[in-house]
Amino acid sequence: MSIYLDNSATTRVCDEAAQKVLDAMQNHYGNPSSLHSMGVDAELILKEARENIADAISVKPNEIFFTSGGTEANNLAVFGAANALKRLGKRIVTTSIEHPSVLNAMKELEKQGFEVIYLKPAPDGAIKVEDLNEAVTSETILVSIMIVNNETGAIQPVEAAKKAIKRAGSPALLHCDAVQGFLKVPLRPARLGIDLMTMSSHKIHGPKGAGALYIRTGARILPVIFGGGQEKGIRSGTEPVPAIAGFGEAARVAYKKFAETRENMFKLRGYLIERLAAMPQVVLNPTCAGQSSKEELYAPHILNFSVPGIRSEIMLHYLESKGIYVSSGSACSKGARSRVLAEMGLPSDIIDSSIRVSFSRFNTRSDVETLADEILKGAERLARSK
Amino acid sequence: MSIYLDNSATTRVCDEAAQKVLDAMQNHYGNPSSLHSMGVDAELILKEARENIADAISVKPNEIFFTSGGTEANNLAVFGAANALKRLGKRIVTTSIEHPSVLNAMKELEKQGFEVIYLKPAPDGAIKVEDLNEAVTSETILVSIMIVNNETGAIQPVEAAKKAIKRAGSPALLHCDAVQGFLKVPLRPARLGIDLMTMSSHKIHGPKGAGALYIRTGARILPVIFGGGQEKGIRSGTEPVPAIAGFGEAARVAYKKFAETRENMFKLRGYLIERLAAMPQVVLNPTCAGQSSKEELYAPHILNFSVPGIRSEIMLHYLESKGIYVSSGSACSKGARSRVLAEMGLPSDIIDSSIRVSFSRFNTRSDVETLADEILKGAERLARSK
Repeated sequence: MSIYLDNSATTRVCDEAAQKVLDAMQNHYGNPSSLHSMGVDAELILKEARENIADAISVKPNEIFFTSGGTEANNLAVFGAANALKRLGKRIVTTSIEHPSVLNAMKELEKQGFEVIYLKPAPDGAIKVEDLNEAVTSETILVSIMIVNNETGAIQPVEAAKKAIKRAGSPALLHCDAVQGFLKVPLRPARLGIDLMTMSSHKIHGPKGAGALYIRTGARILPVIFGGGQEKGIRSGTEPVPAIAGFGEAARVAYKKFAETRENMFKLRGYLIERLAAMPQVVLNPTCAGQSSKEELYAPHILNFSVPGIRSEIMLHYLESKGIYVSSGSACSKGARSRVLAEMGLPSDIIDSSIRVSFSRFNTRSDVETLADEILKGAERLARSK
Repeated sequence: MSIYLDNSATTRVCDEAAQKVLDAMQNHYGNPSSLHSMGVDAELILKEARENIADAISVKPNEIFFTSGGTEANNLAVFGAANALKRLGKRIVTTSIEHPSVLNAMKELEKQGFEVIYLKPAPDGAIKVEDLNEAVTSETILVSIMIVNNETGAIQPVEAAKKAIKRAGSPALLHCDAVQGFLKVPLRPARLGIDLMTMSSHKIHGPKGAGALYIRTGARILPVIFGGGQEKGIRSGTEPVPAIAGFGEAARVAYKKFAETRENMFKLRGYLIERLAAMPQVVLNPTCAGQSSKEELYAPHILNFSVPGIRSEIMLHYLESKGIYVSSGSACSKGARSRVLAEMGLPSDIIDSSIRVSFSRFNTRSDVETLADEILKGAERLARSK
């Protein structure tokens, strides 16, 4: 029996979504661009999925644009906004703890002559409001800040970013990578003043291969991929109807269960914190504000801790041998040292022994009990064997 | 009972591929970038799919790079090659009958200062060898020419393009959009001297949402999408494992049945040509070389004809009312006038009444009999009602 606690890397596709994918492949296989009724039928599937995703964040369906996933949506937002607004300025403000799909897009923009400011987080994992206020100027054309950090679960000051843009009289669009925030924290981009927001299917029990960018009505960006003009020209290419069908269904189900899931994940997180805090070998990260499970500071589904002296991969593989799946840093860094914890200024021994646990609605208290028991056993056994 | 004859727009996902998609979603849902065994398990699915696709075109698996589909693969090839080679020249040679995902990428490159030459086809639908020889110069950095045209089925002179590059002493990479050629015509890119070749899953009974670019070992291009460095940095973003699993399986099955399918499709095409040739109301396109079903000139799965005086959409909807699905032009043009036929110099009444029929291995002689009967009835009835 395996216990999957790496839900920030990816999630199991829920049965409802899997059924929709299968149904789309076998019964609604038309090309949405085809003029005949099989095309119209496929287009209707896209429409329903668009509505489900829009509902989950209280926006209009025509503000949802499908992409192949979170990485592409982040690239589309960053390149699309920079290219649309480059005549107004070359300054972009982001953070040093964004996902590589934002950070590496920014590096490309720097090569093209854009000036990118990377704000560092405080030791608690969040970007400081005063840093935002200082960085955003009237020449800033884009502010990109994530909703929830993927390694620490720290919630970022998005409203403050919007205020900083207004205060500076800046034409900047506000982009938020919500891959880890979507359906994990209450999220109303229209109310928060977000212009562009990235979502991913496979983090919410939908299939890999679909994502979406919310583009506020009136916000104008340029495409990255060119072709047949699908998604109102913003993203060309035959839409992945099966994956989108699954994405929409996953969003519908997750939104329906949102409050219950969130409460349950906070309980699991709180219980794990309690257990870990009682282990002298374990240090909870972020070390300063750390142990809080307060909703305003941390997302419910992520917990990051270290067992100093035992390298992340060693603990990860020990837990794996017990059928428990967690991660060291983010999946995308594939074993590289955590950039996020380093940016927070944590010491090397904490970074090199860090473990990320991430929950889904399928996890139970018993999963966390087993995890905690095994962390303790692992910490004892692995320390002895050194 | 419906008869689907719009297989160049998209195909029904075969049962074998659908099963693989479902299995990947439910049983192999790890993130291929995760360090634990669930990640390794997902990575193995990618490996198998990569091998199946490589086998189908006799190349090495490490020369196959997954994308979200044909449009993205075409964009990656065009932008990726242009950006990698721009220091060697700014001249690009392509054709005026490429898919919009090539043509519109070229338009973007023109905005960036590249010089793009668009070769027009002869009246038989193929680009002329002498035009290629003339257009490709020593400053040319990219030649992009499709294997099979998506509207006419005309096979393009790819070997001649390679020879033109060599003759000119040009550093150009040769890109071929093989979306309509892959597993329809015998295709060995390594033997043909192709450097980059685009394939799509949903045209070969795989799911929408996956494609691949063959990149010959030694050919260097730059990425379009940036992030976690998946696909050796060429295409970042969590791989759509379920769609890729289905793509690989669809390629495996289609490759196994290749000879048989091809022969059957040629028979269906030949039979339809025979029936249409006997109808005074119908003109076969391309009008000049037209009626041939010779392997060297046309792909087996596409046939384009016109019923002058009856607009494409009228005939399309008439056939649809009989449960028969065909298309007017390509799906991606969504009802716009066929650019390809216009480039071939066909007259307006032929273009405005053109119909594309495209076969798959699931079509039978009885499908084509019904189609031919209904075209004749439609031509008579719709002409009377004018």
